Amino acid sequence: MKLYQRDEIQAVVGIDDEALRQVEAGFIALGRGEAVQPAILSMVMEEFNSEVDVKTAHIKGWERYAIKVSSGAFDNPKHGLPSLNGLMMLFSARTGQVEAVLFDEGYLTMVRTAMAGAIAAKYLSREDSRRVAVLGAGEQAQRQVEALRLVRNIDIVDVWARRSEGAEDYADRMRSRGFTVSMHDSVHSACDQADIIITATSAREPLLFAHDLPDGVHVTAMGSDSPDKRELDESVLIHAGAFVCDCRAQSEHNGELKVFTQEKREPPFVVLELGRVIDRGERLRTSEADITVCDLTGTGVQDTAIASFALSRLAGR
Amino acid sequence: MKLYQRDEIQAVVGIDDEALRQVEAGFIALGRGEAVQPAILSMVMEEFNSEVDVKTAHIKGWERYAIKVSSGAFDNPKHGLPSLNGLMMLFSARTGQVEAVLFDEGYLTMVRTAMAGAIAAKYLSREDSRRVAVLGAGEQAQRQVEALRLVRNIDIVDVWARRSEGAEDYADRMRSRGFTVSMHDSVHSACDQADIIITATSAREPLLFAHDLPDGVHVTAMGSDSPDKRELDESVLIHAGAFVCDCRAQSEHNGELKVFTQEKREPPFVVLELGRVIDRGERLRTSEADITVCDLTGTGVQDTAIASFALSRLAGR
Repeated sequence: MKLYQRDEIQAVVGIDDEALRQVEAGFIALGRGEAVQPAILSMVMEEFNSEVDVKTAHIKGWERYAIKVSSGAFDNPKHGLPSLNGLMMLFSARTGQVEAVLFDEGYLTMVRTAMAGAIAAKYLSREDSRRVAVLGAGEQAQRQVEALRLVRNIDIVDVWARRSEGAEDYADRMRSRGFTVSMHDSVHSACDQADIIITATSAREPLLFAHDLPDGVHVTAMGSDSPDKRELDESVLIHAGAFVCDCRAQSEHNGELKVFTQEKREPPFVVLELGRVIDRGERLRTSEADITVCDLTGTGVQDTAIASFALSRLAGR
Repeated sequence: MKLYQRDEIQAVVGIDDEALRQVEAGFIALGRGEAVQPAILSMVMEEFNSEVDVKTAHIKGWERYAIKVSSGAFDNPKHGLPSLNGLMMLFSARTGQVEAVLFDEGYLTMVRTAMAGAIAAKYLSREDSRRVAVLGAGEQAQRQVEALRLVRNIDIVDVWARRSEGAEDYADRMRSRGFTVSMHDSVHSACDQADIIITATSAREPLLFAHDLPDGVHVTAMGSDSPDKRELDESVLIHAGAFVCDCRAQSEHNGELKVFTQEKREPPFVVLELGRVIDRGERLRTSEADITVCDLTGTGVQDTAIASFALSRLAGR
């Protein structure tokens, strides 16, 4: 059994084509029904303002599966600690033995989440997409855009964030990575010329509406991952006509479909899963003006894919 | 963050009064509604004949919670490996940081499961219980009896097992621990004079019936812990009149109540949870002839209790 620390993992796994292929293989297995992915185990500790999630999935035929524990302690920033933490364990599906523990502190979650956005854009956005609007200024707001470069020739970024200092800091970071960046004081203005919109906020009320969407845009919503978060107004979903998500059950519980679950309504649009769209080669974009939407809640297959990939690189050093 | 191996853990945690008190504190917290205990995360890997379960619970006010991963790989014995494996992680409820990983390979599960049986007997069996009938000859068949000695003056063991070689080996082991042991070729004969009956098998069909129960006996059923296992015939539950379990939701899904869940029937007896029985001081035994039954499926509070206890002993060495 091997133990690896974050710095060792960071040295060998990043946002690159091979990681993308691994995560995509996970989505395709899920789409084909060739993965077993239990519901997320979730526990809230109210008196500590903290929570923990456990995700896992087994991809049929794969020798290893990951179990990921993600903890969130939301008073940590007051004490100079990061809010998010966690680790991934790799088990042999054949013998049940622990093969490795990756003390990645959330690093691999960051990578596989960015990859999911890139995969969504690869299959849903216009091929000539160059300009990205980003709502939010945190780590995923950055990593999503970096990962998009694996699949589209992105060079212009329009950013909006609730706190203008956050947007300024973000703009500096992205300019140093070679992007042309504009800051905006409204969501509408940020999205006005976008080919791709990324929502990467912790919003609890919708912040993107149908009237913010330019023709032909693709939207990836990755902020909402718990029962109390929401980024997209229903009008966005209706305008798109088809709604793609990483995992329907999770989207209904934690993601952008939960308004329909809570109100016991059938969504007035087609609901598709990303892995199935990829596997079946479905074309959701039939004209230059079509709008596509993908809601990402984060799946166990991504964790098993990225952890297996990380271990193969770590072991191969 | 600390890592501990099985031998270190075994050296400081065993079947003793202090471990019993810790596990009992977990049950009482659960009974008082002072614990958060999510449903078990469970995943089956059919092509490898293997499975994995994740359990956790937070006891309100406790600084740490455990997440336990238990893996079962049922082809392992063919290759000289144990079927069961696993580890426990302790997290700070306050900061979400991993404080320790206990690579106990299932050892602490063995201890806390034996403790639960002793706690059930402490509150449900007759105080003068001396004679135990054990169905099954595996590790828990042994550990349950050893743990009973913490709460009752047990000196006679009657064993029945499907394989007679298993029973013989079991009898040798228990004699060397000071018990008077008789082997039986039927469940009925084994139970005939029992004060306490322990079922510790992997039976898929009921093997204990009402007509096997002597007056005044207490039954602890700890074998059934998955949707396809079952040890007690419905007649046992009806005969007892009250049914105690460690966690009702788990008993309905994995334990002896699942026949009622599957057939969508209300159980024709009172269903109680062990922690609540202890907390409220409920007396289920009103005459010497009363029958009591407790179904144990294994709970996250037991894992958090035993892992916290183990860490306190390991850190205090």
